[in-house]
Amino acid sequence: MSAKKNFFSDNVAGAAPEILAALVAANAGDAAPYGADPATEGLRAHFGALFETEVEVFPVGTGTAANGLCEAIVSAPYGAVYVSDSAHVHDNECGGAEFWSGGNARTIPVPGSDGKMSAAELARMVDEAVARPADVPPRAVSISQGTEASTVYTLAEVRAIAEVAHARRLWVHMDGARLANAVVRLGSTPGEATWQAGVDILSFGATKNGVLTADAVVFFNRELAGSMRYRRRRGGHHFSKMRFLSVQLEAYIANNLWLRNARHANLMARRMRDGLAAIPGVQFRGPSEINFVLVALPQPIWDGLVAEGYSFSRRGAPSEGIIRIVCAFDTTEEDVDELVATARHYAGVNAHRLPVSGTAG
Amino acid sequence: MSAKKNFFSDNVAGAAPEILAALVAANAGDAAPYGADPATEGLRAHFGALFETEVEVFPVGTGTAANGLCEAIVSAPYGAVYVSDSAHVHDNECGGAEFWSGGNARTIPVPGSDGKMSAAELARMVDEAVARPADVPPRAVSISQGTEASTVYTLAEVRAIAEVAHARRLWVHMDGARLANAVVRLGSTPGEATWQAGVDILSFGATKNGVLTADAVVFFNRELAGSMRYRRRRGGHHFSKMRFLSVQLEAYIANNLWLRNARHANLMARRMRDGLAAIPGVQFRGPSEINFVLVALPQPIWDGLVAEGYSFSRRGAPSEGIIRIVCAFDTTEEDVDELVATARHYAGVNAHRLPVSGTAG
Amino acid sequence: MSAKKNFFSDNVAGAAPEILAALVAANAGDAAPYGADPATEGLRAHFGALFETEVEVFPVGTGTAANGLCEAIVSAPYGAVYVSDSAHVHDNECGGAEFWSGGNARTIPVPGSDGKMSAAELARMVDEAVARPADVPPRAVSISQGTEASTVYTLAEVRAIAEVAHARRLWVHMDGARLANAVVRLGSTPGEATWQAGVDILSFGATKNGVLTADAVVFFNRELAGSMRYRRRRGGHHFSKMRFLSVQLEAYIANNLWLRNARHANLMARRMRDGLAAIPGVQFRGPSEINFVLVALPQPIWDGLVAEGYSFSRRGAPSEGIIRIVCAFDTTEEDVDELVATARHYAGVNAHRLPVSGTAG
Amino acid sequence: MSAKKNFFSDNVAGAAPEILAALVAANAGDAAPYGADPATEGLRAHFGALFETEVEVFPVGTGTAANGLCEAIVSAPYGAVYVSDSAHVHDNECGGAEFWSGGNARTIPVPGSDGKMSAAELARMVDEAVARPADVPPRAVSISQGTEASTVYTLAEVRAIAEVAHARRLWVHMDGARLANAVVRLGSTPGEATWQAGVDILSFGATKNGVLTADAVVFFNRELAGSMRYRRRRGGHHFSKMRFLSVQLEAYIANNLWLRNARHANLMARRMRDGLAAIPGVQFRGPSEINFVLVALPQPIWDGLVAEGYSFSRRGAPSEGIIRIVCAFDTTEEDVDELVATARHYAGVNAHRLPVSGTAG
Repeated sequence: MSAKKNFFSDNVAGAAPEILAALVAANAGDAAPYGADPATEGLRAHFGALFETEVEVFPVGTGTAANGLCEAIVSAPYGAVYVSDSAHVHDNECGGAEFWSGGNARTIPVPGSDGKMSAAELARMVDEAVARPADVPPRAVSISQGTEASTVYTLAEVRAIAEVAHARRLWVHMDGARLANAVVRLGSTPGEATWQAGVDILSFGATKNGVLTADAVVFFNRELAGSMRYRRRRGGHHFSKMRFLSVQLEAYIANNLWLRNARHANLMARRMRDGLAAIPGVQFRGPSEINFVLVALPQPIWDGLVAEGYSFSRRGAPSEGIIRIVCAFDTTEEDVDELVATARHYAGVNAHRLPVSGTAG
Repeated sequence: MSAKKNFFSDNVAGAAPEILAALVAANAGDAAPYGADPATEGLRAHFGALFETEVEVFPVGTGTAANGLCEAIVSAPYGAVYVSDSAHVHDNECGGAEFWSGGNARTIPVPGSDGKMSAAELARMVDEAVARPADVPPRAVSISQGTEASTVYTLAEVRAIAEVAHARRLWVHMDGARLANAVVRLGSTPGEATWQAGVDILSFGATKNGVLTADAVVFFNRELAGSMRYRRRRGGHHFSKMRFLSVQLEAYIANNLWLRNARHANLMARRMRDGLAAIPGVQFRGPSEINFVLVALPQPIWDGLVAEGYSFSRRGAPSEGIIRIVCAFDTTEEDVDELVATARHYAGVNAHRLPVSGTAG
Repeated sequence: MSAKKNFFSDNVAGAAPEILAALVAANAGDAAPYGADPATEGLRAHFGALFETEVEVFPVGTGTAANGLCEAIVSAPYGAVYVSDSAHVHDNECGGAEFWSGGNARTIPVPGSDGKMSAAELARMVDEAVARPADVPPRAVSISQGTEASTVYTLAEVRAIAEVAHARRLWVHMDGARLANAVVRLGSTPGEATWQAGVDILSFGATKNGVLTADAVVFFNRELAGSMRYRRRRGGHHFSKMRFLSVQLEAYIANNLWLRNARHANLMARRMRDGLAAIPGVQFRGPSEINFVLVALPQPIWDGLVAEGYSFSRRGAPSEGIIRIVCAFDTTEEDVDELVATARHYAGVNAHRLPVSGTAG
Repeated sequence: MSAKKNFFSDNVAGAAPEILAALVAANAGDAAPYGADPATEGLRAHFGALFETEVEVFPVGTGTAANGLCEAIVSAPYGAVYVSDSAHVHDNECGGAEFWSGGNARTIPVPGSDGKMSAAELARMVDEAVARPADVPPRAVSISQGTEASTVYTLAEVRAIAEVAHARRLWVHMDGARLANAVVRLGSTPGEATWQAGVDILSFGATKNGVLTADAVVFFNRELAGSMRYRRRRGGHHFSKMRFLSVQLEAYIANNLWLRNARHANLMARRMRDGLAAIPGVQFRGPSEINFVLVALPQPIWDGLVAEGYSFSRRGAPSEGIIRIVCAFDTTEEDVDELVATARHYAGVNAHRLPVSGTAG
């Protein structure tokens, strides 16, 4: 059996069996289109139970759509959304906030460390901007939970940011593309991680953690949802066969599947880190609090892994040689161990432990 | 076994078995994200073969996204898109053209009949607008093939519109949400129906005809595609697990599935019309050239069908009593015949033949 | 002395002497920029007194800017603005509503007669649109007072439209590019013509009636003004030397200058109409309630006037031969009489009464 | 006679006598509206002669409008404009680039020193962004000449930036709000300072240097001008009485008025700096290459100047105590000397040299 070689991203994986089964089951029989079906209509109750509060839920096709819709809503009628300087919404979505808002939003990066923005720096920047009447007025803050640096804001950190924001009448958006991984790491309830810490509106990620093609926007502050149905439709995310998104989301949160998937992925990243840590010359770049490892590898290891068919994405400047190794819900212990063994082999360590790579490669 | 009762739209149906099978098959193993997978990369060749010319193909989640992207591209940097007065893009997409273009597009309805715009009227309106320097400048025309009135532009009609457009340096967009039904009706090749008749850019519909959640934009004029990858990504239609859209589209056009599905749906609509035509008081509104019937029913029939659990969508003012009966790829002869028999029953015609539905059609 | 030959529009005229004097006076000495000067700060009180209610006033450079800003505000976060089918904002501002709103507004023409929308038709169209969840949601109505057809809504007509609007939670915008002419015609107070009849927000026109380059947005509903200062600045209408706009507006409404100017222009249009009415073959197109006349002239008259150097703008299709003759604050009785005499001359009527056109032409 | 006390900005001044005279002269008689008048039509030739090349010229009301239009044009259909980190267009125009482009532009600050961007840093950032397919694609660079730091790019520096840009297919915009001051400083011709150094499109500032309310966009690359007339009209900068902007611009460049005004303002800033330099504790912040001085004053001087009625704008954080002292075309030697003497007085230096400030203050 060929092992997993693709650690490029969590979205190289397909769907979890439970998700696929839900999709297949939903294909039997007709259903009202555009979200008037029972599965879509049931999401509010399911997510309400999950978050232990009343919510509005809107499935969309991608996390970029979820983020863009959220930024457009929280910046209305016009203003700035403060983000961390590694935020996906800032530099990986082709200017989605500007697009979804019709030019009414601008994302402004806030410095910080470990992929997290500093609440103090946020307060300073917002106060300065408010004092400049010709600048874009601050309207919201957006934090990624977990971050692009494999870190997680503590609940206290989220609360501190939300307090800075709310004291200045800014909305709080959370980009939860990897929310499940963060919740598992925090050991909190979903409600504690979000609205109880001050989050008004959430991009609820699912695709990276075992869903095929569905994410959602969850409104804890339901007043913000007023324009959502129009915005989503014109953006082409009001799917006519909405039930096929809704059943994926339903199955995703049923029976804690989302947390089980995430817990496993986080664990595999931890195992990966522990395995690599024993190899001389391997240098980690920051923590690995969720499901991926940022690491600089000695050239022979890097060359060897590539030669063996492994895929990763690079981070930072090419000269830094940093790669991101991402584990998914379907990464196995064997997958991890084989990668580590291969790395050890090319590092010249314990070569005898390398599996028969001729067939596994 | 319970028969199909939902004739509300073609999107009440699920996916064709071939599509679902392709999706399930694609779920095995990893694949590069964001369209760098083999299925997505193969689409250009598959669609090139289908249309017998070189094309660019971009999968998106919905027809509204396909249309919005197309209108934004053909109106750039700024201008008007002329549409038929029943065009979906004009009044069923929440102003998608304005949205996708960032306020740079406006759709302008052109009068016509049977859901089709008149080439002569188009020429007159464009010429008038060009003479008004303070009006929105004409940039493109968008025609729906087939139309919201269950009609199909003849190839000569498409060519006439395209000639009017190109002579005035306007792009030609085709909204092919039901292109398959139209191609079958025309008896033409896909190429004859599109680029050979002057179409520059196409919203290639699939969801209404047996696909789960995927449509595409096809560029015959490949110069127009330059900004597409950015536009699609920021709009949230550059799916990270793109392969799951691509395999649906691949299966959809393979082995003529799309045309077989459409031919069947058209045939069922014809059968429906023939069956209803024999019932006194039933009045058709326009032709039924593709897969649905627009009809005004006597009140007792209407009440009876609703009482029996049938679903339709209304068209026009409530006082007109017009309904749209849509057949899909999975509508059976029995489904049609049962509806007709039920209608006959409530019309007081041949009541004794109800409900031996197997033979009643 | 050469007589006025240019009846193309009211904006062919320069500024009234009082306006120019105010501008020259304002040029002495320094003043705080960006509207922090006394003249700008005094506008709120001056306009409050004029309209007999508390208002917010924002000078802008042009009527198109005033209208665009108003439409963006009343359509927020997104929606349709219903306009009369001859509205300037619909087809003479290059899609300004779409632009200023970032693609969030669409103008929808409402049929009517004499350049005025029908309240009943408005109600019908709005109710229909509300029932279509995929259409652009109605948010506001915009009426031009006076109209492009040289007519004026009666106060009862404005109230009827405002009642239809407010009952449906739509804002009411008035495009008052020629408000002065309408107020004079109505014989009402400015307050009666606007907020007392239900107007929430007003484009206050001045340029067409003796001002150089300044119009204003007046908010009767001051809650709507919240985003105005940002919107105006980014649109480039927050002039750094704002005082030069403000003193024009101040002088314009001081001592009833605006109404005196408008009364005179209206009177000249009436004199023009009366003079032309006596010429055989001259056909008026609608009333001349404000400061211009829409008329179809026999070809010899048309040719003669052009030969003598007169300028007009055409209206409608060329074959209709309709011209618009616009009188301004500075049109004299002699100007009018000379045009009429010239027309009579070329009509072959009373040629002996023609002035010494050889020098005047 | 009371001396000038307002050094807040160059736009606290009114218009130069020549400009006002042109305005008054233009008020006699009628003229075709919307730029069809002789003054507007003559601008192309006048500016062509000034810049010694064929150009397109479009008057607008403000520098913010000029910049917004330029950024929208150079970023089309969508992309990033790289600016210096103190650029007015980035943080003093309420997000004008995003607005004018309908959400299709984003400004990205490039680090540098003395208010100028570094060509090397620009190259690095653009190359990095191009390598990230999900980021906003680079389309243009915008440089301010002179800068917000009272500095001027040398011709070599402009050329270096333009070379970096053009090698990467980026357009080059120059924000010339203080172009006259920069040209005087450089001792170059206007052509050398702009298109000969690689500038494609120019915001030609006039308001800060003796004009009432007019700036312009000048296209050296005339292909870029295609969409300008539509964009300007919908933005409300296609003034109906355009001639009143055009005659200002015409008078501004006639007989070198613009350069004489700027030379004088620069000279006054130099005199100011020299005067202040002799006062102990006065600390300049950067050069004073154009018409203003950035300086940190000892508290007693600051307090004294304020007490005497002087106005300045602050720069940087309040704790830094930096003020900007701006000289305009109408600042006199006496104005400067009085300010310096007052500062000396409050510094406790040579108090006997203070003029009779008791009455002037």
